[in-house]
Amino acid sequence: MRYDYVVIGSGVAGYPAAVLLAREGHKVAVIEENLIGGECTNYGCVPSKSLYLLAEAYRSLKKVNAEIHTDWKEISKFVKEVVDESRKGIEYLLNKHDIEIINSKGRLISPKRVKTNEGIIEAKKIILALGTDPKPLPGICFNKDILSNREIFYIDEKPERLLIVGGGVIGVEVSNIFAQLGTEVVLVEAMEHILPFLDKDVALTMRRFLKENGVQIRERVIVKDIKKKDEKLVVKLSNNEILTVDKVLVSIGRIPKTNEIGLENASIEVDQYGFIKVDKLYRTTNTDIYAVGDVVGGPLLAHKAMLESIAAYRNIVGKEPITLNYKLVPQTIFSGLEISWIGYTEKELKSKGINYKKIKLPISYLSSVRIKDSRYSYVKILLSEEKQQILGIHIISPNASEVISSFLPFVIEKIDFKKIAETPYPHLTVSEMVREIAEYIIGEPIHTVVKRMKTIRNQ
Amino acid sequence: MRYDYVVIGSGVAGYPAAVLLAREGHKVAVIEENLIGGECTNYGCVPSKSLYLLAEAYRSLKKVNAEIHTDWKEISKFVKEVVDESRKGIEYLLNKHDIEIINSKGRLISPKRVKTNEGIIEAKKIILALGTDPKPLPGICFNKDILSNREIFYIDEKPERLLIVGGGVIGVEVSNIFAQLGTEVVLVEAMEHILPFLDKDVALTMRRFLKENGVQIRERVIVKDIKKKDEKLVVKLSNNEILTVDKVLVSIGRIPKTNEIGLENASIEVDQYGFIKVDKLYRTTNTDIYAVGDVVGGPLLAHKAMLESIAAYRNIVGKEPITLNYKLVPQTIFSGLEISWIGYTEKELKSKGINYKKIKLPISYLSSVRIKDSRYSYVKILLSEEKQQILGIHIISPNASEVISSFLPFVIEKIDFKKIAETPYPHLTVSEMVREIAEYIIGEPIHTVVKRMKTIRNQ
Repeated sequence: MRYDYVVIGSGVAGYPAAVLLAREGHKVAVIEENLIGGECTNYGCVPSKSLYLLAEAYRSLKKVNAEIHTDWKEISKFVKEVVDESRKGIEYLLNKHDIEIINSKGRLISPKRVKTNEGIIEAKKIILALGTDPKPLPGICFNKDILSNREIFYIDEKPERLLIVGGGVIGVEVSNIFAQLGTEVVLVEAMEHILPFLDKDVALTMRRFLKENGVQIRERVIVKDIKKKDEKLVVKLSNNEILTVDKVLVSIGRIPKTNEIGLENASIEVDQYGFIKVDKLYRTTNTDIYAVGDVVGGPLLAHKAMLESIAAYRNIVGKEPITLNYKLVPQTIFSGLEISWIGYTEKELKSKGINYKKIKLPISYLSSVRIKDSRYSYVKILLSEEKQQILGIHIISPNASEVISSFLPFVIEKIDFKKIAETPYPHLTVSEMVREIAEYIIGEPIHTVVKRMKTIRNQ
Repeated sequence: MRYDYVVIGSGVAGYPAAVLLAREGHKVAVIEENLIGGECTNYGCVPSKSLYLLAEAYRSLKKVNAEIHTDWKEISKFVKEVVDESRKGIEYLLNKHDIEIINSKGRLISPKRVKTNEGIIEAKKIILALGTDPKPLPGICFNKDILSNREIFYIDEKPERLLIVGGGVIGVEVSNIFAQLGTEVVLVEAMEHILPFLDKDVALTMRRFLKENGVQIRERVIVKDIKKKDEKLVVKLSNNEILTVDKVLVSIGRIPKTNEIGLENASIEVDQYGFIKVDKLYRTTNTDIYAVGDVVGGPLLAHKAMLESIAAYRNIVGKEPITLNYKLVPQTIFSGLEISWIGYTEKELKSKGINYKKIKLPISYLSSVRIKDSRYSYVKILLSEEKQQILGIHIISPNASEVISSFLPFVIEKIDFKKIAETPYPHLTVSEMVREIAEYIIGEPIHTVVKRMKTIRNQ
């Protein structure tokens, strides 16, 4: 079979390019070995945010000591329905654009040929949108009790006790969800603190929030051993603690899915971590083959993958290229008290030797924040020395995931903070903080006192 | 007693100017006849959004057929606690700035003198931030069963059956809250449809949503008579329907609170609706007396009031004036399926003879929207003919109240939609729509098909 373009992987990195290419009349095939929609739709954002909606409802109703009875079967049904609908949406999109869907693993046997269950497929150009797999604990395989993100959102019953290994984004989000829903959660992190890639003040705020919500946290601790005993798992930690739990979630990292893909048959190189090397146009070391999304590394996020997919399409058909600024990709931890950020952390600025001014503005006085209960809410803004440019912004508050988008135009275009301070951001929302922050930066806040902004010198 | 400045009213229109003036060292007094914080804090946004949080939690948990038991006393306690904290926040701010709080009605007895319970107060300049009162039904007084926004959020027990008269913002928000919490709600609107100031398509979407959530709606109907009978209220409607309910909420409009203020003693004029006339600098017809907030009319919103309060302060001390563009004041109806908008409605553009292009983009395919269940979600954008300028944007979706802020920079500054289309707005949020909309406007959407945008000619 011959196609103009073949995309391997139908996730958020794959389907956008496929659709855009097909819309221009090209003959396009998508090879998918698993479920259409990839990790995000089937095992990531979509099921986790479905459960998160329920977890947040539980959290709200705790404020009035509500008694809530749910049947876990109903919860599972809801999650499955949302995921199915999302997946069907992508299938519809592919079908509507006459894209051939080949349900098979795809293996490069030469630079323009892919071996599939349905025979060998030829294409002028190939896009690799392979994604990643969850990384297992050293020497401990995934099984029906030791789970990854592929299984945790689909378990048959609510675990009474859940151990989560790895305090990164997935670990923290799942901890919060299950703790709110009534599971006893223990979260174990090998590094000095959970969310080790974030500045310590931000990570410790999340630690405090999780602890208050019942999550037990162990830091600088690793799992030594897991044994099954009487339907339970007995886990030995490096601090000699022995835990007995129903399930274990392992969320310690991701492995690029490049195994048995035949990269060697097309001279495609990977970096030291196994991510496929690409140039600015998302071409691999074989320039007829593109790679985008999680498999090329960088922030493993759906919106980053989608933009890369669009960028690859543009480069393939010769449209004006898109240059993604990876420091401006917004990131969020959906965890009740959410953390959203764009740009640099303080430790990154330090390591790069960049001077900056720092604002740390508590926003717990905002009624919206007060209602959603977050005495810990604050915003940290790192400004260039001349206070003209936002180098980094971290929002720690309920709804931070929605609010961060309000800051995107500020980092794209130079926006006059004075104008923002004079713009009526809507009451009663968390986004009101935007005007308050602008007011603070220009030095005339109503609700707070301006502290002198110290420059942090790193050079 | 002599002050530099006196502010009558301690709500969102009053306290910002008071704080800013006091911070510059001026001697400031605030006269408040009721509770510090005014309508928004005590009887408006703050208590209603506290209840809304719970209503939304109920709505989320309906998706999994949860059984929820709450004690109304706990709900009331929660609302009161949030309101008390918010009010104390404002009291703290006033005290911290050494502002004298005079708990009294204030009555102008001459242009620079105000009579209070604590004697006559003199000031160089006076700011009137008087607010509004709820408008009663003609010939029917408010009482312990016929309520306004002052009482509805503080009732002792959940009404089994509630009649809401007036399908404006308050009526729709309260309908949604009580319907979600399990009250049988009947909403009566005198005009052709609820939310009569909005375009019909938007209003009818809300009608469909409310009906699905159990609200019974009567349009082109008015209340003829309310009689008490056996602890219930028997209500006769103009369509001859007889309703028996526990409580009635009247939300048919607001009356500027200018009664017995002594405006005549300072030659202050009001308009035909009773709102105080002000010039661009918020000076009344007596130029030593300023008026801001709800009492001057325009959108009766906290964020508009706050900006006017800041503007008045700036004008009084001779700082560069702020010119508010009232068409850019974002407005929101917090009603599950929220409606947020900036700028013009279609009917406003029609009546002004302005041509426009219209985009109506369904956004129910976004996973965030799907999870929060809104098959009815869409965005309506009204663009200038050259597609350069947003004349109006209406978001109908969950979280619209937070998302609308993402559009504010677009209406403040000219922003390149192409740049926005190339910016990774965060997945999985409702704000993702911003990029999708930009993609649609520039003509390259992934998830939808671009329909030819028709120009609607009004001239």
